[in-house]
Amino acid sequence: MDPNISTLRQKLADAGQSHLLQFWNELSPEEQAELTQELEGMDFQEINGFFKNAMQTSNSSKQGKMDCRMEPVPREVLGSVTRDRESVKDWELTGECISKNKVAVLLLAGGQGTRLGVSYPKGMYDIGLPSHKTLFQIQAERILKLQQLVEQSHKIKCCIPWYIMTSGRTMKSTKDFFSKHNYFGLDKNSVVFFQQGMLPAMDYNCKIILESKGKPSMAPDGNGGLYRALGNQGILDDMERRGIESIHVYCVDNILVKVADPAFVGFCVQKGADCGAKVVEKTNPTEAVGVVCKVDGRYQVVEYSEITLATAEKRSADGRLMFNAANVANHFFSFSFLRDIVQKYEPQLQHHVAQKKIPYVDAQGQLIKPEKPNGIKMEKFVFDIFQFAKTFVVYEVLREDEFSPLKNADTQDGKDTPTTARHALMSLHHRWVLNAGGHFIDENGRRVPAIPRDGAAGSVTDDGKRNLKDGTDLPIKCEISPLVSYGGEGLEELVKGKEFQPTLTIDKEGVHQLVKNGTYFYMY
Amino acid sequence: MDPNISTLRQKLADAGQSHLLQFWNELSPEEQAELTQELEGMDFQEINGFFKNAMQTSNSSKQGKMDCRMEPVPREVLGSVTRDRESVKDWELTGECISKNKVAVLLLAGGQGTRLGVSYPKGMYDIGLPSHKTLFQIQAERILKLQQLVEQSHKIKCCIPWYIMTSGRTMKSTKDFFSKHNYFGLDKNSVVFFQQGMLPAMDYNCKIILESKGKPSMAPDGNGGLYRALGNQGILDDMERRGIESIHVYCVDNILVKVADPAFVGFCVQKGADCGAKVVEKTNPTEAVGVVCKVDGRYQVVEYSEITLATAEKRSADGRLMFNAANVANHFFSFSFLRDIVQKYEPQLQHHVAQKKIPYVDAQGQLIKPEKPNGIKMEKFVFDIFQFAKTFVVYEVLREDEFSPLKNADTQDGKDTPTTARHALMSLHHRWVLNAGGHFIDENGRRVPAIPRDGAAGSVTDDGKRNLKDGTDLPIKCEISPLVSYGGEGLEELVKGKEFQPTLTIDKEGVHQLVKNGTYFYMY
Repeated sequence: MDPNISTLRQKLADAGQSHLLQFWNELSPEEQAELTQELEGMDFQEINGFFKNAMQTSNSSKQGKMDCRMEPVPREVLGSVTRDRESVKDWELTGECISKNKVAVLLLAGGQGTRLGVSYPKGMYDIGLPSHKTLFQIQAERILKLQQLVEQSHKIKCCIPWYIMTSGRTMKSTKDFFSKHNYFGLDKNSVVFFQQGMLPAMDYNCKIILESKGKPSMAPDGNGGLYRALGNQGILDDMERRGIESIHVYCVDNILVKVADPAFVGFCVQKGADCGAKVVEKTNPTEAVGVVCKVDGRYQVVEYSEITLATAEKRSADGRLMFNAANVANHFFSFSFLRDIVQKYEPQLQHHVAQKKIPYVDAQGQLIKPEKPNGIKMEKFVFDIFQFAKTFVVYEVLREDEFSPLKNADTQDGKDTPTTARHALMSLHHRWVLNAGGHFIDENGRRVPAIPRDGAAGSVTDDGKRNLKDGTDLPIKCEISPLVSYGGEGLEELVKGKEFQPTLTIDKEGVHQLVKNGTYFYMY
Repeated sequence: MDPNISTLRQKLADAGQSHLLQFWNELSPEEQAELTQELEGMDFQEINGFFKNAMQTSNSSKQGKMDCRMEPVPREVLGSVTRDRESVKDWELTGECISKNKVAVLLLAGGQGTRLGVSYPKGMYDIGLPSHKTLFQIQAERILKLQQLVEQSHKIKCCIPWYIMTSGRTMKSTKDFFSKHNYFGLDKNSVVFFQQGMLPAMDYNCKIILESKGKPSMAPDGNGGLYRALGNQGILDDMERRGIESIHVYCVDNILVKVADPAFVGFCVQKGADCGAKVVEKTNPTEAVGVVCKVDGRYQVVEYSEITLATAEKRSADGRLMFNAANVANHFFSFSFLRDIVQKYEPQLQHHVAQKKIPYVDAQGQLIKPEKPNGIKMEKFVFDIFQFAKTFVVYEVLREDEFSPLKNADTQDGKDTPTTARHALMSLHHRWVLNAGGHFIDENGRRVPAIPRDGAAGSVTDDGKRNLKDGTDLPIKCEISPLVSYGGEGLEELVKGKEFQPTLTIDKEGVHQLVKNGTYFYMY
């Protein structure tokens, strides 16, 4: 017998995981090699410890108890684009620290598009815009445009490094995609890929689950796997080398994300924050979002599943929901805070337990798809580190301007689908055109009201019925390339006083309208 | 020739509408009789006057001009269930003027379910609840329950008369439906049907449009036809005879409507208002709803199509949209105000012009379905009389508790559909159960979190994917009969401390749960 195997067998026996080799003799030499390699990379004592701690925490924190420990975000740590409008310009100016090349963006893109129904990274998804741009391309072009805007106003070379966290499952396809698209025009040396860790799924008896005879069931360790990866993949060092002082962290799925948002970064810097969360107002008590609040005096995100209806329905004197700071996975970290987290606090983070129905092979080697949860996945969350912040701030923005996540495949009444994401982007760009002085007209040459009916493009002059077949029931079709405008700026000269018939697209080549036969024509 | 016809011919000639008889000789005697009857009922001079005035008003009021004339609702005329919580109980007490039989409800049900895709009145639509109740039944049962609640607390006989406005097209089927269902338990003498008027569609040259050779194109005169009908159908007299002092007017399509809402009525009465509007907060600038505001110092509803985006996006110092009082077609009128309207002000109301694509027969008798608007329909709106109020108040309620209109057939991403209406009602009833101390469990006996994922019933313990096939993606299925609870009251004894598996239904017979084979079993 291979001496490595006997060492491995001993390691497994010591950790109570010997069952992982129960089908050893049935495996081909290749399968044996793969399994050996996978298992040798795992620290079973550590994994067992994770399990023990996570289960302990999960069992001790009962729903209901959370309610009396929660306090809302105090007004003084909140900056709001609706309630502090006069300050936004100030914050944007502060945000120009971007011009000193001290700001980086960090993208959480380790997940696969499982719920979306695709087997490749979500960032590669074409959500059906006129341009057919993917989420990765949209985000890349926003970074590119922001660099250009800063270069124009500061007459310096600006670089916003982009750190992209993938997972074992998405690394290769993500890198290939960027390479194939020439990094969407970005400097490839400023696009840095790294990889979060994986953890095995475990049954309730702390046994690692086999998804086939030669393969443990593995999943990424949650977006909070970020902090471990920042250390062990050398990312923190890379940031230090580049002189990064502020990091904007966000999730790949939000089509409206303002990457490196100068106002958000500026607000956090001006407040001297080491940690900040961008939020939108939760207005319906039963909306399924986590809310930023204080628990036992420390900031955290409380998930919607952790609170009672009574708490969700509580209101402040101003009539708003008391716990209304809905987390949109858009965070600010100072570099020194991130360094402290990685070097000091990360090991203190507990894994969260998600009970799951995990397919497994039974003792007979039969694949079973359980009908009830049969085990757990362990995950850390990116916001688990809020508790360690010394100066924590919250920045409230408008949902319709900044948040529309892509999570699910298109279905009737679907939420967070390609359709809702596409509509959110086109609605935003429609508003940009109107606010820059442009107008839309219908096929009869009549001005379409600024607010389309039910978010629809049908003019009020039609037959009063929603036409459900010909697509007029959609928002005004309008797409503006991020290379033309980062946040609605710079459009006056292109649209002011002009009339457009949808579909309108504006890109670096100019202003285009779709004509009946399905091709675009160049307007000017 | 029939002498009547020559009189009619003269009348038509005087009014420039002679073309209505252009196919006379091609009509059968029955068709001739029908046409004669229809035309003899019409006052052509009046109709021509309506057209002239409506077109004049329509042409003079240009979009954009509205913006600088609009002022928001002042705080002092606003009562809000979120911002004035401590007063709501007070208002409810005042609302007990219901016990003196001085409150009536008035239902606007003249429309047909065209957009919904049915040819019968919308109130007869089965929105697919477990009980399969129609909108009419739900509303009738709420009135019945409210009467019972008042009778219990005041030890008197309570009657809330229900006035139901239909149109020529819906009168017979509506009356038949009520009769067939034995008025849903209400005293039939307190259910009073009446009928709004009809107006012809006209082309841009003031010619009445023929939809067939023997039939002018007719449509109801808008829900503002109410005021004329109140007078000429003897409804005002009926109200006076019954001693009615307050009237709650609402539209048939809102599944959550709190019919004769004591808090709303009480608020209006306590403020000495002659006219009041219930509103919900508009939070998204481009939501397609009309807003209550002041224009040139008088209250009115400004439609979403009348304002610019800049005005729609304006915000008050508190961060809310400045024009955020979204009209939900739920109004309060004092009897004396209504009498003044009918007797003095109604003739001053202008018709609104809706440009439409109206099918017509051309000079050759050919039916044409135009591709562009070719004429207008004239309508008055129920809220057109706000301008005459001496004391106008606004009452703000929660959308999720009180407003979910049924307008369109089910389609992907549909708004205001049977599905959204059904979900809104079940979500409300789910919250009632939770707030009364009940709990829901999933098929594995685990407590379902108070806030289901994405408004869905899937427990957080499942496999993390939204199951798109088995219906777990819906809200908790829960329906409580209005005969058991009008507004969430009286449920503790039925649900407190108990656990339920959806589908849960509670009606006068008791508490039921749907079991796997599709039948309900009685719980207790």
